[in-house]
Amino acid sequence: MTTTLITGGQVVSPQGAAAADVLIDGETVSAVLTPGTAAALGVTADRTIDAAGKYVLPGGIDVHTHMDMPFGGTFSVDDFETGTRAAAWGGTTTIVDFPVQKKGGSLQEAVDTWHAKAEGKACIDYGFHAILADVNDTSLKEMDGLVDQGVTSFKLFMAYPGVFLSTDDQIIQAMYRAADNGATIMMHAENGTAIDQIVQRAIAAGNTAPKWHGLTRPIALEAEAVNRAAQMADVTGAPLYFVHLSSGAAVDVVTQARDAGRNVFGETCPQYLFLDESDLARADFEGAKYVCTPALRPVEEQAKLWRGLRTNDLSVVATDHCPFCFVPDKQLGKDDFRAIPNGLPGVEHRMDLLHMGVTKGEISLARWVEISAATPARMFGMYPKKGVVAPGSDADIVIYDPTAKQTVSAQTHHMNVDYSVYEGWEFTGKVETVLSRGEVVLDAGEFTGSPGRGKFIKRSLSQYLV
Amino acid sequence: MTTTLITGGQVVSPQGAAAADVLIDGETVSAVLTPGTAAALGVTADRTIDAAGKYVLPGGIDVHTHMDMPFGGTFSVDDFETGTRAAAWGGTTTIVDFPVQKKGGSLQEAVDTWHAKAEGKACIDYGFHAILADVNDTSLKEMDGLVDQGVTSFKLFMAYPGVFLSTDDQIIQAMYRAADNGATIMMHAENGTAIDQIVQRAIAAGNTAPKWHGLTRPIALEAEAVNRAAQMADVTGAPLYFVHLSSGAAVDVVTQARDAGRNVFGETCPQYLFLDESDLARADFEGAKYVCTPALRPVEEQAKLWRGLRTNDLSVVATDHCPFCFVPDKQLGKDDFRAIPNGLPGVEHRMDLLHMGVTKGEISLARWVEISAATPARMFGMYPKKGVVAPGSDADIVIYDPTAKQTVSAQTHHMNVDYSVYEGWEFTGKVETVLSRGEVVLDAGEFTGSPGRGKFIKRSLSQYLV
Amino acid sequence: MTTTLITGGQVVSPQGAAAADVLIDGETVSAVLTPGTAAALGVTADRTIDAAGKYVLPGGIDVHTHMDMPFGGTFSVDDFETGTRAAAWGGTTTIVDFPVQKKGGSLQEAVDTWHAKAEGKACIDYGFHAILADVNDTSLKEMDGLVDQGVTSFKLFMAYPGVFLSTDDQIIQAMYRAADNGATIMMHAENGTAIDQIVQRAIAAGNTAPKWHGLTRPIALEAEAVNRAAQMADVTGAPLYFVHLSSGAAVDVVTQARDAGRNVFGETCPQYLFLDESDLARADFEGAKYVCTPALRPVEEQAKLWRGLRTNDLSVVATDHCPFCFVPDKQLGKDDFRAIPNGLPGVEHRMDLLHMGVTKGEISLARWVEISAATPARMFGMYPKKGVVAPGSDADIVIYDPTAKQTVSAQTHHMNVDYSVYEGWEFTGKVETVLSRGEVVLDAGEFTGSPGRGKFIKRSLSQYLV
Amino acid sequence: MTTTLITGGQVVSPQGAAAADVLIDGETVSAVLTPGTAAALGVTADRTIDAAGKYVLPGGIDVHTHMDMPFGGTFSVDDFETGTRAAAWGGTTTIVDFPVQKKGGSLQEAVDTWHAKAEGKACIDYGFHAILADVNDTSLKEMDGLVDQGVTSFKLFMAYPGVFLSTDDQIIQAMYRAADNGATIMMHAENGTAIDQIVQRAIAAGNTAPKWHGLTRPIALEAEAVNRAAQMADVTGAPLYFVHLSSGAAVDVVTQARDAGRNVFGETCPQYLFLDESDLARADFEGAKYVCTPALRPVEEQAKLWRGLRTNDLSVVATDHCPFCFVPDKQLGKDDFRAIPNGLPGVEHRMDLLHMGVTKGEISLARWVEISAATPARMFGMYPKKGVVAPGSDADIVIYDPTAKQTVSAQTHHMNVDYSVYEGWEFTGKVETVLSRGEVVLDAGEFTGSPGRGKFIKRSLSQYLV
Repeated sequence: MTTTLITGGQVVSPQGAAAADVLIDGETVSAVLTPGTAAALGVTADRTIDAAGKYVLPGGIDVHTHMDMPFGGTFSVDDFETGTRAAAWGGTTTIVDFPVQKKGGSLQEAVDTWHAKAEGKACIDYGFHAILADVNDTSLKEMDGLVDQGVTSFKLFMAYPGVFLSTDDQIIQAMYRAADNGATIMMHAENGTAIDQIVQRAIAAGNTAPKWHGLTRPIALEAEAVNRAAQMADVTGAPLYFVHLSSGAAVDVVTQARDAGRNVFGETCPQYLFLDESDLARADFEGAKYVCTPALRPVEEQAKLWRGLRTNDLSVVATDHCPFCFVPDKQLGKDDFRAIPNGLPGVEHRMDLLHMGVTKGEISLARWVEISAATPARMFGMYPKKGVVAPGSDADIVIYDPTAKQTVSAQTHHMNVDYSVYEGWEFTGKVETVLSRGEVVLDAGEFTGSPGRGKFIKRSLSQYLV
Repeated sequence: MTTTLITGGQVVSPQGAAAADVLIDGETVSAVLTPGTAAALGVTADRTIDAAGKYVLPGGIDVHTHMDMPFGGTFSVDDFETGTRAAAWGGTTTIVDFPVQKKGGSLQEAVDTWHAKAEGKACIDYGFHAILADVNDTSLKEMDGLVDQGVTSFKLFMAYPGVFLSTDDQIIQAMYRAADNGATIMMHAENGTAIDQIVQRAIAAGNTAPKWHGLTRPIALEAEAVNRAAQMADVTGAPLYFVHLSSGAAVDVVTQARDAGRNVFGETCPQYLFLDESDLARADFEGAKYVCTPALRPVEEQAKLWRGLRTNDLSVVATDHCPFCFVPDKQLGKDDFRAIPNGLPGVEHRMDLLHMGVTKGEISLARWVEISAATPARMFGMYPKKGVVAPGSDADIVIYDPTAKQTVSAQTHHMNVDYSVYEGWEFTGKVETVLSRGEVVLDAGEFTGSPGRGKFIKRSLSQYLV
Repeated sequence: MTTTLITGGQVVSPQGAAAADVLIDGETVSAVLTPGTAAALGVTADRTIDAAGKYVLPGGIDVHTHMDMPFGGTFSVDDFETGTRAAAWGGTTTIVDFPVQKKGGSLQEAVDTWHAKAEGKACIDYGFHAILADVNDTSLKEMDGLVDQGVTSFKLFMAYPGVFLSTDDQIIQAMYRAADNGATIMMHAENGTAIDQIVQRAIAAGNTAPKWHGLTRPIALEAEAVNRAAQMADVTGAPLYFVHLSSGAAVDVVTQARDAGRNVFGETCPQYLFLDESDLARADFEGAKYVCTPALRPVEEQAKLWRGLRTNDLSVVATDHCPFCFVPDKQLGKDDFRAIPNGLPGVEHRMDLLHMGVTKGEISLARWVEISAATPARMFGMYPKKGVVAPGSDADIVIYDPTAKQTVSAQTHHMNVDYSVYEGWEFTGKVETVLSRGEVVLDAGEFTGSPGRGKFIKRSLSQYLV
Repeated sequence: MTTTLITGGQVVSPQGAAAADVLIDGETVSAVLTPGTAAALGVTADRTIDAAGKYVLPGGIDVHTHMDMPFGGTFSVDDFETGTRAAAWGGTTTIVDFPVQKKGGSLQEAVDTWHAKAEGKACIDYGFHAILADVNDTSLKEMDGLVDQGVTSFKLFMAYPGVFLSTDDQIIQAMYRAADNGATIMMHAENGTAIDQIVQRAIAAGNTAPKWHGLTRPIALEAEAVNRAAQMADVTGAPLYFVHLSSGAAVDVVTQARDAGRNVFGETCPQYLFLDESDLARADFEGAKYVCTPALRPVEEQAKLWRGLRTNDLSVVATDHCPFCFVPDKQLGKDDFRAIPNGLPGVEHRMDLLHMGVTKGEISLARWVEISAATPARMFGMYPKKGVVAPGSDADIVIYDPTAKQTVSAQTHHMNVDYSVYEGWEFTGKVETVLSRGEVVLDAGEFTGSPGRGKFIKRSLSQYLV
């Protein structure tokens, strides 16, 4: 097996950074050593990577992506090849994607379909959470089997009535099942039933522009749903993870539950940390580029989310990567915001955006690694295989240059989408080299991996419960 | 018109008690005077009532009764005659009852039916809240008309799926309507959708005894529903009144909303202040007598409810009077707690039980009058006609002897039901005389009123909003 | 005795307003009657006051004034004559002033001194709270005696080290005493010990202008002191009333204690509701006119205080009237804000300013009467003698014209001070007639009372405890 | 230099446990390797330790000890030799002790004295926090110099008036200094001023037994002091660490500050997790053995503290080791609990007691290491030298057998004190081998270290700030 030695870098963990060399043997890290020790021991490697002045990070883990996802007759525009390649460009070496159960269909079928989507295409490793779109006796029973297959988390929706929404009786049944089999329930928490009425009132009043996507989804109804799910989790004992929290009020409910010592966790996404409702109000239908759900919020919510990341009331940052092209996809909603496909491209820029949080003093270097890699791995049962640079772990490693500059543009990004929500933004910090299970898949501005090399990760239960 | 002079008593108001005489001219109070003033002015009256050593109270107002209510093929066993007569025995001179909209039926029809039920029967004055059991475009539009008719409050249920439950889209529509027309939304707050699943699990496990009625309705799912409704009220701007809160956690949510200055109010009932889940667990199916919804709670909740009454986070005590006989009605659920008719008799004992709260130091004398008469009147648009002993107000007056003793029993009570949940309890304090619009309807242990003398109260909008 | 009949007005109470006539016999109200009843009964009066279109209010009660108070070699510039006359002009018929114990002196001596100050001068009735400036075994024992004399509340300071400040051991001793004898502890809650250090840092840095009076007294150190006193009250069981709360954070601590059902109460003052820190920063040393303690706060605190008034977390509005002339008094601090006498004139405008709160929708009409008269009376043991228009109560009555206009100016106000903090403000609403114990002391723009007619009120213990 | 290879164990970090071998070169870890890698690379070591079936832990760090501390004419009975040896027996390889400034003395003098106490005696490494017992201009200035010397934290007392207590003006000055120089303020948070009055009342009432030590120190006055210090920290910007929190109410205040994202941290001690006020009430003056400050609390507080440890509102467990013999020391207070020396022996059993928390399910294995080693190191500027098993870190390593049994007794423990508060308790889990900077100081039940080998740790500023 090929051996690799990364020398001279600062290895970063959730506790801090320290100078160390990393020895890789094949696909895994075999040793972490003080600088100079390898030489003193006479250890040689097939390949040496000089990381002097760089961070040596555990590869990023994005636990919220939607590749090749069917949506209203079309599909999200990144498939497992383009999407995972873009992820790698941005320093992410693992994604967890969402097989979607069809109404009337089985969970297993959904997972099988997703295996087929990923196979031969994925450039990095991947796992699956299963979307429960039709909770019934059959699908509830299937949950146990999927846990055995390494699909140990199940997503439910309190939004999208008639499409994904599960009613409270369905939710509580799934939670009871999760409490039994140990799986984690993931929740899209918005009261979609009430929101749809507000949407209808807006449409009836002739308010059809993209900004009304935001104005019809009040923060109070995100916080409400968070509370409702948390109370049901309390009754049932199921671990509960909220995806894409977007507002301070929603985080506050999580904070209360966490202060009480419950297994309730929150995720947010870069778009809620860096973009705001004024983007949704951009002229010339440009606002449609920013339509995602929950909607972008007033700018003052950003500080509350950053605070949540510091206090660990938000434990994970993932992207909810779900790209649609401005032309033609987003144009579907030209005359009615309800028809705009919901979703943003994002998988490529998460690590860089969070690094900007470090340079701006919002989070520490150690916390960056924790929310982007270590906690995602532990939360979803991939630790210590993923999420840490340590002996025995997969050699998913990012060499990150904290001082390099880059400018974002749809012209140059690697996602398969015709616009960027960060168009023209200048970042400080850039991925230099990416190893996935010991293989250099990106280096010096060139992608050297190959489709199909990524493997499915059979995940265990959450390792983050209290 | 007949004039009456009540002399020598302590007139009690929400601010305190003071010696005063009360002059009644026909149906209304014409003057409140310092003792002796009437004589000094040469005022004489057709009748003089000596209230020395007694409290002179505004007649009690019970804003939550269910007389003659259809339920599962039967009816609650007190009709407007027996129920209002029992109320008068207990010092209550006004009730507000609940016309029930049928699925597919109109609100107006429900109110008309209830007018027919009350007419010729009611012994005291009465108003109506309308139960919205079928929120749709038609019934939403009817709300405005009912407000004009003096039915200014509308009750919705978050419990009883398939029967009374309104979904969140229905609730938010009714709230928007109320925000427009000024009506108050009343809410039965329990997540019935989730609870029904818990009930099914219990039944599937063979747990059919009455105590399982309580064990399947967790406090967390009452608090959840309170929060959900409060958030929707915040979004819409509708005034919101929670009926029959039963737990500290539910009150806590109200407290938060009230601390924020919102128009959110809470009611509790004597059964939650004085009874507890151990009653539900009584042997020989006796627990069935105590089946009401929300269910009786662990005894430690009682202190939290009393505290809520002191802090005004609970503003009103009403009875939710909804009596069914132990035989045959309650026997329906002999083998399945789901079939036990939900409801307790209570309209007769509210004033006495709350007076026990005074003697035990839980509430002050002034607060007793506030939660039983003054606030109910203001909350539901009947002030100053009702709820106060003051010039111009209806002469609904109770002469209460705070030192008299009485023992409760189904043998002697005046409700039309074969058991009492307070069987054998000894009270200190007793109603001596009751005037309803100037007429003595109860005195010295004799009911002197007559069916049909009670009148419908056309209520205005809430006078309690902040 | 002279009899007076007030006809045609709306009598306002904490529950609402109702048309009623008021009959006064000598010094007290003898009857409240429905309009027309007096005539029907053949009741005549020596004098009739037409209150058509006007409010008939219980006379205002200002429980926080400092008349003729020694301060740094000078005295507050209103004595009991000018101060109580100005109060009457503004619709206030009762004040409670603060005898100041001297270091080394006795409490009784302070009260005796204040009796002497008031006697022959007071134009309206007055009571006393005693300031404990030197808590020791002797003064602790004196507390019981003062309670017997009707001085049933004792003020302590957590501010002003070396002058008024009591240390925590002194505070807890006074609280234990109050818990025993039933008196109420009043607290000036600011951590003066810490603040004095911040002040020294400011002075050392050359920051001597009036605005630094505010910048050196952070809200956090008001909230801290409120919490500290509340915790000691919880340990000892003493009733606790916070004077002049100025910030949302301070109110929040009171809210927490009140939510827990404790006897903790809050007062604020018109200056915190209507003025803000920008006034302290006025040019040309004008800021000195606005120096009071606690200092005026950022304008966003005002809304939090109004909310506190609505939620009853603030129960009373008093003035902390403590006037000093701009020339020469305030000039003492020309070069050092520490030397500016602390205090504002205010006793004359409280009722009008709070009525502006009514017209602006901040509080209801009923609440206006509650916070300005009814609750102060109950809080400090004067009910029902004061604070209500009811038979047997003192005929302290204000006829208030809610539509009259007036413009405030130091040229025309009746306080003995050369400036107004509301100079040029236009008010809607004006006092028309004032009766004090049945005597018209103000009418049609003329003061008709006389110095010395005001009497000392021997107060009972608080009637507001839960 | 000697090399050591630890093989076959589970290396535990705050993220979890993983099989790894540890190579030590002299005093530091030179590599962490996958099992087998050392052999594959041909790496040999002078000594190999077989850790199969054992945990390989970073050595415990006890940041709160009082060795050889003068107290009321005597000294705590462990000096740096006996105390650090006992620590090593219990798996602790670093302590941070408290030099005590004398009234009128300098901080430097205190630190110098403590250097002298430790030198030639300490068996493991040690650092110092300085106790500020006399805050004045001189000692404030000294703080900066001590930071340069590696004494980067300063402890203040809100308890013990006349002895250690700093008044709020002193506290805020020290905090301003810390905010400038980056040091951490440590706080003993109890309102000693108020408590001393309660104590005097107890003594005056003849209550002199040990249990009154607890009954006179109410939880409310711990929570109060925590809030007061937190508010001053907020005003000044100083990092704040509360030592020995003992109650849920105190933790709640920390929780609030932490939810707001402030640099406020809490420590608790094993005695508050495992003992309770009933121990203080033991007969025959045995209660005196349990006299420490804050006092042992009602048993229901324990669960709140464990929850705080899970939620990280309590971040560290230290011992407050301050032993006095039952005879003669504790006997000083035979007739007056005030004279009982305050303090318990504990340095030896912290790791074992916390491991019991793991076995009982109160905390996870990873959390055990975090609160006992990793966070203490980061909180007090010793990371990554201490607190982690990683290349470059000091080889302070504990081999822990999680299944071994041991029974605690004063007969067999290694602290220099004649009793144990855990006498007769049986523990599951036991330290097997301890390395301090690469040297085996304890192995197979034999202490192999030597006095004087321990070195002073020059600490940096906190690495745990948000």
